[in-house]
Parts: sequence; C-alpha cells; structure tokens
Amino acid sequence: RIDAGRLLASLEALGRFGALPGGGTNRLALSDADRAARDWTVDRMHALGMAVRVDAIGNVFARYAGTEQRAPVLTGSHIDTVRTGGLYDGNYGVLAGLEVVATLREAGLRTRRPIEVAFFTNEEGARFQPDMLGSLVAVGGLPLAEALATRGIDGATVGEELQRIGYAGQAPVGAPQVDSFVELHIEQGPVLHQQGLDIGVVEGVQGICWLEFTLEGCSNHAGTTPMALRRDAGLVAARITAFAHELALRYGGRQLATVGAVELRPNLVNVIAQRAVMTVDLRNTDGAALARAEAELLGFATRCAAEQGVVLGQRRLARFDPVAFDPTLVELVAQEAQALGLGTLRLPSGAGHDAQMLARVCPSAMIFVPSVDGLSHNPGEHTEAHHLVQGAQVLLQVLTRLANR
Amino acid sequence: RIDAGRLLASLEALGRFGALPGGGTNRLALSDADRAARDWTVDRMHALGMAVRVDAIGNVFARYAGTEQRAPVLTGSHIDTVRTGGLYDGNYGVLAGLEVVATLREAGLRTRRPIEVAFFTNEEGARFQPDMLGSLVAVGGLPLAEALATRGIDGATVGEELQRIGYAGQAPVGAPQVDSFVELHIEQGPVLHQQGLDIGVVEGVQGICWLEFTLEGCSNHAGTTPMALRRDAGLVAARITAFAHELALRYGGRQLATVGAVELRPNLVNVIAQRAVMTVDLRNTDGAALARAEAELLGFATRCAAEQGVVLGQRRLARFDPVAFDPTLVELVAQEAQALGLGTLRLPSGAGHDAQMLARVCPSAMIFVPSVDGLSHNPGEHTEAHHLVQGAQVLLQVLTRLANR
Ligand SMILES: NC(=O)NCCC(=O)O
Ligand SMILES: NC(=O)NCCC(=O)O
Repeated sequence: RIDAGRLLASLEALGRFGALPGGGTNRLALSDADRAARDWTVDRMHALGMAVRVDAIGNVFARYAGTEQRAPVLTGSHIDTVRTGGLYDGNYGVLAGLEVVATLREAGLRTRRPIEVAFFTNEEGARFQPDMLGSLVAVGGLPLAEALATRGIDGATVGEELQRIGYAGQAPVGAPQVDSFVELHIEQGPVLHQQGLDIGVVEGVQGICWLEFTLEGCSNHAGTTPMALRRDAGLVAARITAFAHELALRYGGRQLATVGAVELRPNLVNVIAQRAVMTVDLRNTDGAALARAEAELLGFATRCAAEQGVVLGQRRLARFDPVAFDPTLVELVAQEAQALGLGTLRLPSGAGHDAQMLARVCPSAMIFVPSVDGLSHNPGEHTEAHHLVQGAQVLLQVLTRLANR
Repeated sequence: RIDAGRLLASLEALGRFGALPGGGTNRLALSDADRAARDWTVDRMHALGMAVRVDAIGNVFARYAGTEQRAPVLTGSHIDTVRTGGLYDGNYGVLAGLEVVATLREAGLRTRRPIEVAFFTNEEGARFQPDMLGSLVAVGGLPLAEALATRGIDGATVGEELQRIGYAGQAPVGAPQVDSFVELHIEQGPVLHQQGLDIGVVEGVQGICWLEFTLEGCSNHAGTTPMALRRDAGLVAARITAFAHELALRYGGRQLATVGAVELRPNLVNVIAQRAVMTVDLRNTDGAALARAEAELLGFATRCAAEQGVVLGQRRLARFDPVAFDPTLVELVAQEAQALGLGTLRLPSGAGHDAQMLARVCPSAMIFVPSVDGLSHNPGEHTEAHHLVQGAQVLLQVLTRLANR
C-alpha cells in the first residue's frame, strides 16, 4: 500500500515552487520556478535509486529497473502549471508515480518490466503552444527543430529556455520503446465530484483546436473619429469572442469555446485599437462537430473583420483530434479500481493530457480523481486527500499488473 | 508674419523626444521622454527671454511681458502624447505660441497685456485619468492633493512622477489671473480635410464620459468547465464592448463609443478569464444624450455581469459636460481667419482640450487646422505645412488683438 503521508507531503513540497501568495502556483513551462521544481523532482528520483535521463525536448524519465530487460511500463504527467494553477494538476501524476516506486522499493519488490516515471515539458501550453509539446515531440508528432524554435507568449523560444535552465538533454526523441502508458490526473471538471464517485475511468480525450487571430485595424482618436470611419481591431475581437460563446451554446452537447487571452494595442482609453491578438480554444468530443465549429468560427471572423476594414491573420496554435484510449487498458483500470471497492465512472477527458500523445505509440489509459467543484487552472483547485491516496493506490495496482505481464 | 521654417523645424525637433521607429511619438505624461521634451521646451522659452514658472501640478507657463501690468492673454496646449501619437497633437499649439512670441520679439513689438504660453500636464489622459488633468487642477476643478494621488496605468502616481522628473513646481494652482485663453490645435477629425477648408472656428467641446469596469469572474479550465458553469470575465467584457458600439450606432448623431483598453487575467489560451479591466469612452455634443448613453451602458453592464455570475466594479475616470466657448472670442477667431483670406468652418471639437478647462475661468476659444484623413492618436497623423503656418498666423493675429485690447 502506498504511504499517504509521504504522497501528500511531496505534493505540498512541490507546490512551493512558484507558489502564489494566496495559494496555488504560477509555474509556466521552462521558467525559473519550473527549473527549481524540476531540480527538486530529479533529486527525488535519484534518492529512489532511479536512473534519470533527460531528452532533447526536456522531458525527464526515471527508471526503476525490472527483473527483465524489456520495454518499460511508463507513467507520469507534467509539473508545469498555468499562471493561476493549483497544486495537483500534473504534479499529482508525477509524484504518485514516484510514490508507487517508493512503495515497491520499501517492500523490496521489483516487477518484470521496468517502471518509468516521466514528466513532460510544457504540457499546459500556457507559455508555448501547442500544449502537450514535450510528449508530442517524444512520440515523433512534431519535429524537434520546430519545437525548439517555438516562440512563447513572452518572445523566448523553447530551445533558448531549455538551454538556460539546463534541461536540453541528450536522450533522443521520436521513437520511444514503451510497453504501455498510464497517467493519473485530477479530473479538473465537475463530473466525479457532482456524482460522488471516487475514480474516473478515462475512455479518451476530446478534440482540441486552438486558434490565434491577429487583427490589424487603424489607431485613431476616440473622440474625433465617426463610428462609420473606424477600423477598430478591439471591436472585432469582442465580436469574435461573443460569437464563439454563442456558437458553443448553439452546438450544445460537449462543444466548448473560450477566449482566454486578448491583447490590444496601444491599449489606451481614448485610442481606437490598432491591433488585437486573441486566442480561441474550441473543444468537442465529436471530431466532426469540432471541425464544423472551427470552420464556422473562421467564416465569422473573416466576415466580421472585413466588415470593419480590419485585416485578419490567423494561426492554428494546436489541433488534436479526439483520442480513444486502449480498451484493454481502460478495462484494467476499471477492474483494479472496483477491486479496491471504489465507485467508478467511465468518462472522456475535457483537458488535454500527455496520455493522448503517448496513445499514438503504445496502449495508453488514464485514471481520474475528483476535483472539488470542478475547479482547475485556479489557485483554489482542490482534491480531497482520501481521493489523492485512492488514486495513487489504483495506479500502484495497474502499474504492477502491467509490469508483471 | 510668423517664420514658417522656424515653426516647422521646432515641430520636428520636439518630435524627437519619444520618437517611434516608423514615425510619430510615444511620450506618455511624466515619462522620461516627457521630461526631455519639457526640458527642451523650457530651454526654448528661456532663449526667448520669457519668465518661466512651473506650478504644483507641473503645468509650465512662460511670460512675454506686455507694456502694462495686466492679466495676460494665455495660449498653449500640451506636449504629452499617447503611445501611438503624432508630431502635432498638442505640440503644435505650444510651439506656435512660442513662434508668435519669437515673431513679436524679432519685430521689437510688445503688446499691452503680457502674452503667456503654457503647456499643461497630462492632457491626453492616456497614462493618468482624467484627461486635461493639469488644466483642470489649474482652474480649481480638481483638488491638487487628489490629482497628485492619481495612479496611472503603470501604478505610479502623478505626485511621484512629478517629483521624479523635477516638475513639481512652486507656483500655486486654483485661481489663475488670466484675461483670456486661445488654443491652436489640429482638428484630429476628418471634417476640415474633407471639406477642403483651412481653419476650424471651434464653438465648443463635446461631452466626455470615461468609465472603467472591473469584472471579477472565476478562472477555470477551458477544456473541462461546461458553458453553463462558467463565470467568464472576458466574455462580459466582450459583450459590453459590442453593446457600446451598437449603442453609439443606435443613438446616431454625434454619439461615439470606444473600448480602447482591455486587460484579462491570467490572459492564457486555456484559462477562463478570472478578471477583466476595461475602459469605455463615450462622447456626445448633446449632454442629455450622453447622460442617457452612460445610464444605458451601466444598466447593460450590470445585467450582463449578473447573468454570467461576474461581479461588476465601476469607476468614472472622467466626466465633462459639453462646453461652449466664448461667443465674442469665437467670432474674433472667425474674423481674423477670414481677414487672412482663409476658408473657415464653425464646428465642435471631438477631442477634449485644455481650453475646455480654461473656459471655466476666462473667455476661451480654439483654432483648428485640418488633419489629413482625420487621422490622430496615430503615428501617421499629418497636417500640411501650409495649414500649420496659416494656423500660427491666425493665432498671432488673435493674440495680438486680444493683448492690445
Ligand atoms: N491537463 C491540463 O490542464 N492540460 C492543459 C492543456 C489543456 O488546455 O487541456
Ligand atoms: N486632444 C486630445 O487628443 N486630447 C486627449 C483627450 C481626449 O481623449 O479627447
């Protein structure tokens, strides 16, 4: 059985890096806080006698050797956070993986296959896009050179920042030899909490589309420019925002739309905005509906910008189709959770996860624990301690089962 | 006659402070660039043998003595600019005033009354609100202590910044002894240019209302939070922006509405905005219509925020009723312009100006010259050289006429 006290203490400890005054963390990928959190986690891996390697995109893998020379069973997640992040998003999956190893080690147990615990670079996608950048590169889904050249919201590139914080590793990327991947994560949504259940058996991850619009209008005087003569980039951004929201309501089902980032230039009270840069996050479990939503949004943005004499530029920051996890692994998660007497529910993941990238190269699955009130990407993100402990216990069962196959 | 070459060269010279790479200036009030521009202008005043005084809010007055000890005729404007400012907005009125003095001085002429040339602090209102802050304090419309405590968009206060740049002057504010005020300015709107006229005879300034809304929602995950459970501060900001635009179109006439500044927090692609701070600039020549527009906008913002579970905070950053200039002075401007054979038009000012504050304490008027394509608060802001020269000539005629009364 895993050690509850040790697991919870490790979550607290990792939460210190980039801690926000009122709770939660601000630990954008490859920032100084991320470096400190990485160093601390790697120390912990070494303390468990694990062999640590860092790959060229900064993913870190720690191996607990098995009794046989075979492809490892992989677990893990990420330790970067958004600016208003909680203590568990990602961190929990990594530290629970290390807790599983600590438990086996204390008991003097080895599995047949090695167990590896990883944390992947820039899962959040808050600083660099796309999200799941490290795991995407790891599975060969994005060329390394392109990933290293990716510029973040502050202008720095992934490659520069990896060098700066000392995590541009030697291990190659692109062709991982992995038996299977299981990721433990908080749900981040309200479903398990609302239904009073313990474990989410994740069947897959919904489709994700991130668009960036750059709107170029003309700065002019708010007091002298007739409404009809304006080329107001901020107005177009606002209309796209409102339209995206209405589109999601109209599509219904699991269609989501969020405009989380908007920047105006020159951003002054009495100057019509010359430029607006904004993002739109569209998600749907139904890939075809997601594609329609994207097309409809682009059509609206194009028309709306043209009507206002504003020039529209667009970039896709991320685009991932819905992913279905391996049915056998999903069933194994359900069985192990039920064998522990836990209440389970099969559900899709709303958030993107590294497991959706690993699913391209090996059987993959995920285990969710409840998020109180479904709050996430918020300093108040919370999961009850007993749920954290139960989830780690399910992970222990699933990993040992897989690693002894 | 004024010296065209000298006037144009001085405009170029002052444009060097805070110059933007592609033209135009970024010279926010009380910034380092503003300090350098102030120092340069004060040097020029001294070079003309003028007595310079700085008041407690940083307004600078330079006196060209008259033959009698009487209240001065005042002219001038401002030298701060927005972030995307042109070379003429404000600067022109100040340098043309100094050009008038230089012309009189070269000709060995003195008027009966002194002529004073002033530049006022933070006319633009881009860094500190309200706009026309310096002239408002000068005429006793805002207590000095309150003005000094005003916090700008970067968090610094007016008082701190005045100290820092060395323009917290000794001269008292609040009860100016001024005979009359005439401000020369570029139109900043399209009217004179469209009609092919030379001089705008400004009858007054439209009403101005600046509102700031602070919207407090709840940050949450863009991929896991159902649309119905969101408290999205960014969505409310967008809807208010779209509503303000539609309101202006619906009111018609001279109703304007602009949302020039929006800031989201945490401002990330996959996080629902926890907080949005935005400004709305409403203007109308009809004071009653402006009041209705403000009330309607507040009503909408309140309802829209409540619908989305977002808490609305509001501040009035500026509120000035429409101002009518002194009919006798307005007529004098028209006569002097026509006597020079120039094509004139009576019109209201769309922009706010220091003259609208001075009008509270003395007969005031303004002279406009055309802005090419009505472009302003834009680095491409332009006025033809012959118009700049004509405007300064009209100013010379009007000032000497007033100062010899
Ligand atoms: N788990 C998680 O929050 N991932 C970030 C990527 C996303 O926006 O879904
Ligand atoms: N003249 C001018 O641009 N004044 C700035 C204040 C305003 O926004 O009208």
